[in-house]
Amino acid sequence: MTKERLYLFDTTLRDGAQTTGIEFSLEDKIAIARLLDGLGVDYVEGGYPGANVVDTAFFSQSRTKAAQFVAFGMTKRAGRSVENDPGIADLINSSADAVCYVSKAWDHQVKLALGISTKENLKSLAESVRAAIDAGKEAFVDCEHFFDGYKANRTYALDCVKTALEAGARWIVLCDTNGGTMPSEIEEIVTDVISLAPGDRLGIHAHDDTGQAVANSLAAVRAGVRQIQGTLNGLGERCGNANLVTLIPSLVLKPVFAERFETGVTAERLETLTHVSRAFDEILNRGPNRQAPYVGASAFATKAGIHASAIAKDPATYEHVKPESVGNERLIMVSQQAGKSNLLTTLKRFGIEMAKDDTRLDKLLRQVKEREARGYSYDGAEASFFMLAHKMLGTLPKFFDVTSYRTAIERRHNAKGEMVTVCEAVVKIDVDGEILMSVAEGNGPINALDLAMRKDLGKYSDRIDDLELVDFKVRILDGGTGAVTRVLIESRDDSGERWFTVGVSPNIIDASFEALYESFTYKLMKTA
Amino acid sequence: MTKERLYLFDTTLRDGAQTTGIEFSLEDKIAIARLLDGLGVDYVEGGYPGANVVDTAFFSQSRTKAAQFVAFGMTKRAGRSVENDPGIADLINSSADAVCYVSKAWDHQVKLALGISTKENLKSLAESVRAAIDAGKEAFVDCEHFFDGYKANRTYALDCVKTALEAGARWIVLCDTNGGTMPSEIEEIVTDVISLAPGDRLGIHAHDDTGQAVANSLAAVRAGVRQIQGTLNGLGERCGNANLVTLIPSLVLKPVFAERFETGVTAERLETLTHVSRAFDEILNRGPNRQAPYVGASAFATKAGIHASAIAKDPATYEHVKPESVGNERLIMVSQQAGKSNLLTTLKRFGIEMAKDDTRLDKLLRQVKEREARGYSYDGAEASFFMLAHKMLGTLPKFFDVTSYRTAIERRHNAKGEMVTVCEAVVKIDVDGEILMSVAEGNGPINALDLAMRKDLGKYSDRIDDLELVDFKVRILDGGTGAVTRVLIESRDDSGERWFTVGVSPNIIDASFEALYESFTYKLMKTA
Repeated sequence: MTKERLYLFDTTLRDGAQTTGIEFSLEDKIAIARLLDGLGVDYVEGGYPGANVVDTAFFSQSRTKAAQFVAFGMTKRAGRSVENDPGIADLINSSADAVCYVSKAWDHQVKLALGISTKENLKSLAESVRAAIDAGKEAFVDCEHFFDGYKANRTYALDCVKTALEAGARWIVLCDTNGGTMPSEIEEIVTDVISLAPGDRLGIHAHDDTGQAVANSLAAVRAGVRQIQGTLNGLGERCGNANLVTLIPSLVLKPVFAERFETGVTAERLETLTHVSRAFDEILNRGPNRQAPYVGASAFATKAGIHASAIAKDPATYEHVKPESVGNERLIMVSQQAGKSNLLTTLKRFGIEMAKDDTRLDKLLRQVKEREARGYSYDGAEASFFMLAHKMLGTLPKFFDVTSYRTAIERRHNAKGEMVTVCEAVVKIDVDGEILMSVAEGNGPINALDLAMRKDLGKYSDRIDDLELVDFKVRILDGGTGAVTRVLIESRDDSGERWFTVGVSPNIIDASFEALYESFTYKLMKTA
Repeated sequence: MTKERLYLFDTTLRDGAQTTGIEFSLEDKIAIARLLDGLGVDYVEGGYPGANVVDTAFFSQSRTKAAQFVAFGMTKRAGRSVENDPGIADLINSSADAVCYVSKAWDHQVKLALGISTKENLKSLAESVRAAIDAGKEAFVDCEHFFDGYKANRTYALDCVKTALEAGARWIVLCDTNGGTMPSEIEEIVTDVISLAPGDRLGIHAHDDTGQAVANSLAAVRAGVRQIQGTLNGLGERCGNANLVTLIPSLVLKPVFAERFETGVTAERLETLTHVSRAFDEILNRGPNRQAPYVGASAFATKAGIHASAIAKDPATYEHVKPESVGNERLIMVSQQAGKSNLLTTLKRFGIEMAKDDTRLDKLLRQVKEREARGYSYDGAEASFFMLAHKMLGTLPKFFDVTSYRTAIERRHNAKGEMVTVCEAVVKIDVDGEILMSVAEGNGPINALDLAMRKDLGKYSDRIDDLELVDFKVRILDGGTGAVTRVLIESRDDSGERWFTVGVSPNIIDASFEALYESFTYKLMKTA
């Protein structure tokens, strides 16, 4: 039996940006788009070109290879032509492959929030859709407030769908904007819509305000829609959007869906899901949710002794899917046994081949566990893991040693009576017995340290010229200013490669120094 | 039309205790039972009498007033009589009103994990149920692995239900033990069970391994069961149990359920739900989940300016229920995307009333925008926003001034040849003209600065005694160590209030200092 195709649409960079406390930088957006593209989603919605500096820069070039790149915006304003609407121009002139318009499908909202007639609203919708198609792009329509609109005025809600369909929209997405609809209602209403629009032109956009965004999305698929919108780790306004990281494994692994449908996420890509979810949290600079379905550190953890022994006899007892199918691992709290195979896979990616029964593998595993217990996290810092592995194998070169450093930060009034902050770092570096001392001022202590270190690395100076620190993230692991600090540094060079290193210490400067030192070493190893 | 009664069964103190990292003390259990009793759940499952010291002490007396108090345990062991089973004795001699037995309903598991015949298993079940009834208690049966068991051997799974029913069990609970069943499967299987057992004798026990524990519970209710098991804030093994805090408002407020059913949680008690959820997190000593449905701090938050102005016109636009119905509140966030209406609402919450045409409002909005462009973010730091507003209004008191500070971090070999890092801070503080100098060492520069500042604040020293720094987050905004750093500090005091302050600077120490200074000032304003 041929399977029907389900399309996955990610809106992390658009609706996810509405999450309280989240603000994406351009670098964040580029990194997240790359994660999504690699995972195999079909569409990556990137934001609102023209609305702010970051989004405009993000849409200045294509940001996906496999996935379609989607720009989001409003339909044309009433009272002006499509050609004279600067918002529409920003959308169709962007580097996006597709344009997703938001259009209200609840008559009451059209009048209340837009202050235009319901007829004008439909006219804007149709003309905007055609403008995108004329510009050679796919057009999508997000029917905002669709389910509440349907309950209040079924005819108008369906008119919106019909108008979008007739204007040529590739997808018409039914949005449960305030997130209050129950799965049974979704199923009932979608079944009615399906009677006038084909399911392979319909999508679902659910929010988690009743804790049922995933169930609502799956209910809509059962009723016939073929596109699902959601976000990584359920980011989004209020309680978040449908969590794609939770949805995808159910679609791929659960027989009721897997027997009927296929998605762009192959079984092989599904094995990267836990990594994608955790790498995303690293970008957001937050700890992953241990309890997250499928990918959480506790998702396959067993605490109860009786359960643990039953699992030893038959894992299926308390595991509804195989942990490795989503790149996660079983965690038995009494005898912490971890994933040698994970380790082997990562080493192989770095060009280090080892046999499964190599005793050095056990030693490395113990070191990783021990260091992670102290606060290190190698999930997001593979360059540091690479160096740890080389260290254990005795193949880590020592290019240089920082025998001591000192940083001083002073805030005081200067001679003119202005408050100023002065920051200075002194480093003493040993390169093959040659002692080099350098001093530098910087914007902050870590910047000063970085500048002092690169001022003179002796014979290696040339080789770090194009080393650039791209990002620097700090997490406090226990809470309070006295707790352990984890610093993650992202670096890159002219080859375009990016690498992450990690440092841990109660002292933020020390932790930063450790990550900085490893980044320098990694760069020197690359060019060795 | 008379409504059918739905029964709520809380297992926070039993299944919730399986959560990674959770260990309840006796005091915790007593406090949590009190919270649950006040909320109006029908049953409070307290744990396993006889299994450990805490549970045995907890069951030495009744711990609920309105709710039924339930003890959990195994059915009698095969090969010994009910009278000679110490486990059964612990259950029926406890102060519990009811006994809930766990019994495997999957033939494969009976043989594999218990190593007894399926027939013996049914015999144990029936005799254990009768023993509880003979002791004057209600008997419940948790059919473990019910849904997987049903799929593997329908006859045996249904035999378990029939046996429990005939032995006189008040409730037979269908458990989705490994949490992998889809809502459509739950509905289908429960519909079949209902054909042989009345719904008012059946319960559902769901886990969140596919993110659908709430949807699975509601699907079972739609198919006919009349008891729901779950936990506060979704505590529980692996990904957690069905979250009662999410389930209850949907049952009470959503027409599809509210029109047919009633629960012990009245509209009045529902208004305490947000408090119950957060008080529970306090007992667990963890921060509440901002994104939690209904009760999260973000559950009724709006960030986008266009949404905020629509909410001002009609709250139902983006609110699926009234925030006050669950004891929560609307939150219009101040952020780059916000407009004047967000600002007015936030000011009002802080007790600052302003007219919409007050020119100071435009000035404040400009300041917020200008500062956010420089890297500040007020949507996560309302205490800093509160101070910015007071500053603009000329009503911000100046308690103390830090006229200068100096921090030094040195990493070097000590006399023993070990690498050590030493960190020191010196502050000069002006309190109403009195100059106070303090010095402190810390784990890191910010810890040292915090310790030096609180060492002597003159006449204000007593008022910051209970000020505690809970968390500290750092974000680099442009990339690289030379970029702008945003520091967000979370503080709390003995009143239980938590507040967030923000600092921005190219220098991480300066940014931390700013956020620290504002946290101190906010605390002093609270107690002024």
